Amino acid sequence: MAQIFEHTIKVLFQHCDPAGIVFYPRYFEMVNQTVEEWHEVGLKHSFSQMHLDSGYGVPTVSIGAEFTAPSKMGDVLSWSLIVTKLGRTSAHLHIEARCRDELRMTATPVLVSVHMETGRPVPWSDEIRHRMQQYLAPSE
Amino acid sequence: MAQIFEHTIKVLFQHCDPAGIVFYPRYFEMVNQTVEEWHEVGLKHSFSQMHLDSGYGVPTVSIGAEFTAPSKMGDVLSWSLIVTKLGRTSAHLHIEARCRDELRMTATPVLVSVHMETGRPVPWSDEIRHRMQQYLAPSE
Amino acid sequence: MAQIFEHTIKVLFQHCDPAGIVFYPRYFEMVNQTVEEWHEVGLKHSFSQMHLDSGYGVPTVSIGAEFTAPSKMGDVLSWSLIVTKLGRTSAHLHIEARCRDELRMTATPVLVSVHMETGRPVPWSDEIRHRMQQYLAPSE
Amino acid sequence: MAQIFEHTIKVLFQHCDPAGIVFYPRYFEMVNQTVEEWHEVGLKHSFSQMHLDSGYGVPTVSIGAEFTAPSKMGDVLSWSLIVTKLGRTSAHLHIEARCRDELRMTATPVLVSVHMETGRPVPWSDEIRHRMQQYLAPSE
Repeated sequence: MAQIFEHTIKVLFQHCDPAGIVFYPRYFEMVNQTVEEWHEVGLKHSFSQMHLDSGYGVPTVSIGAEFTAPSKMGDVLSWSLIVTKLGRTSAHLHIEARCRDELRMTATPVLVSVHMETGRPVPWSDEIRHRMQQYLAPSE
Repeated sequence: MAQIFEHTIKVLFQHCDPAGIVFYPRYFEMVNQTVEEWHEVGLKHSFSQMHLDSGYGVPTVSIGAEFTAPSKMGDVLSWSLIVTKLGRTSAHLHIEARCRDELRMTATPVLVSVHMETGRPVPWSDEIRHRMQQYLAPSE
Repeated sequence: MAQIFEHTIKVLFQHCDPAGIVFYPRYFEMVNQTVEEWHEVGLKHSFSQMHLDSGYGVPTVSIGAEFTAPSKMGDVLSWSLIVTKLGRTSAHLHIEARCRDELRMTATPVLVSVHMETGRPVPWSDEIRHRMQQYLAPSE
Repeated sequence: MAQIFEHTIKVLFQHCDPAGIVFYPRYFEMVNQTVEEWHEVGLKHSFSQMHLDSGYGVPTVSIGAEFTAPSKMGDVLSWSLIVTKLGRTSAHLHIEARCRDELRMTATPVLVSVHMETGRPVPWSDEIRHRMQQYLAPSE
């Protein structure tokens, strides 16, 4: 059974637009934060370690998103993350945000492991790959 | 022949991340800015008129994006926008950013016309629909 | 003795600039978040209640800030807030961020209580004033 | 007579908060953009040249700001910048934003020239100092 990475983010004043709801680029900041927390807590390999020490990064090369219901200031969003496909140098994620069981948004980013100086893809280390596999959903 | 809406945005220090390239949520701010400029200049119906006077809005209900090459501080991005599908209450857009002819990102947002207070979809006005049609790409 | 409002914010990838340190406008987002948390937790009057229900707001009319040492990705910042002066319609705050006892930044925002529709200052309610006074530092 | 650096920034949807006016941390992004444009256009030494090629930066070590009147979506802000004090390694600036002659905000950032790797202050080059002096307001 795949593990699900979960954390929460509260919707703040600064996330909201003149319509009083989350401005959608802010959702992508939350998606990025979710991926960042997953690296630190779930994969035990923080972004700062990765970027500053190891010299590699995990840029997002594509993303799809659906905004199914608006979120308001003060809403506490429950984020969940699973891996849907794990390649040699890439990882496909499925991320959801819910508030009181209502689905608010889904995002499907594809990350690629790259060497920071060359920008070239590099295979996941065995350690990272092993940890990512724990979040890999069984394909139907 | 469909018109193409075009404008430029320079990549600033504030758009860039510790890797020195545009942080992808900032691209979505630029996509939103492109849609906003198109409304003001192309559709002659500014966001401020729309939100403050007419009481309706055009939330993005879904979006896909590909980041094909990184952008650096100082790069001048040429943005282009066309309509790929025009529904009764929705519009599918295709947006691209290039720098010196290199494709940097594409985004495919779907906008829906909604009444701000009720959140319900409302048909485009004849005037807006007419102007949007000028940007509608002929389907292959 | 004055109470001090305290909370923490972790420095994320999205807060950092190409120099790898917190971009200073992001510090002001954190200052605003600190004021927002203080309202919800300390004053028991959340921003969403205030803005959406009561129809008043607390815009920042001026702010001073010093950035004494840089913050990096992964740093956990400890924020503290006290009131230094409480007027009929205004409040002067002193906010600090520290990491492992090193001072990173101080900010001195002045908030004014205003009616949202008119934009006119309105006196703090007795309840809010009473709660704010608990955070009022004794003047030297 | 001192020169004044001037440019304009239009207030976009993304700058505005649930009250429909510019969220103040976004003003600091605009202040930073003004300093960045001044470097590129006024001082002929772009941020990308400076950061990527020369290896030095100009962090803001302190800033004061007053928000004298709110700005709304669609407002075109006229920004002006002068130097009020020029030190060996620092520069004090006075920046204003106006809309149709109404003052909206003033900011007084202090920049320091630093070597990026060491974080140590370094004197302005003769060339930069010479160009900055053209923007130096005569002291009263």
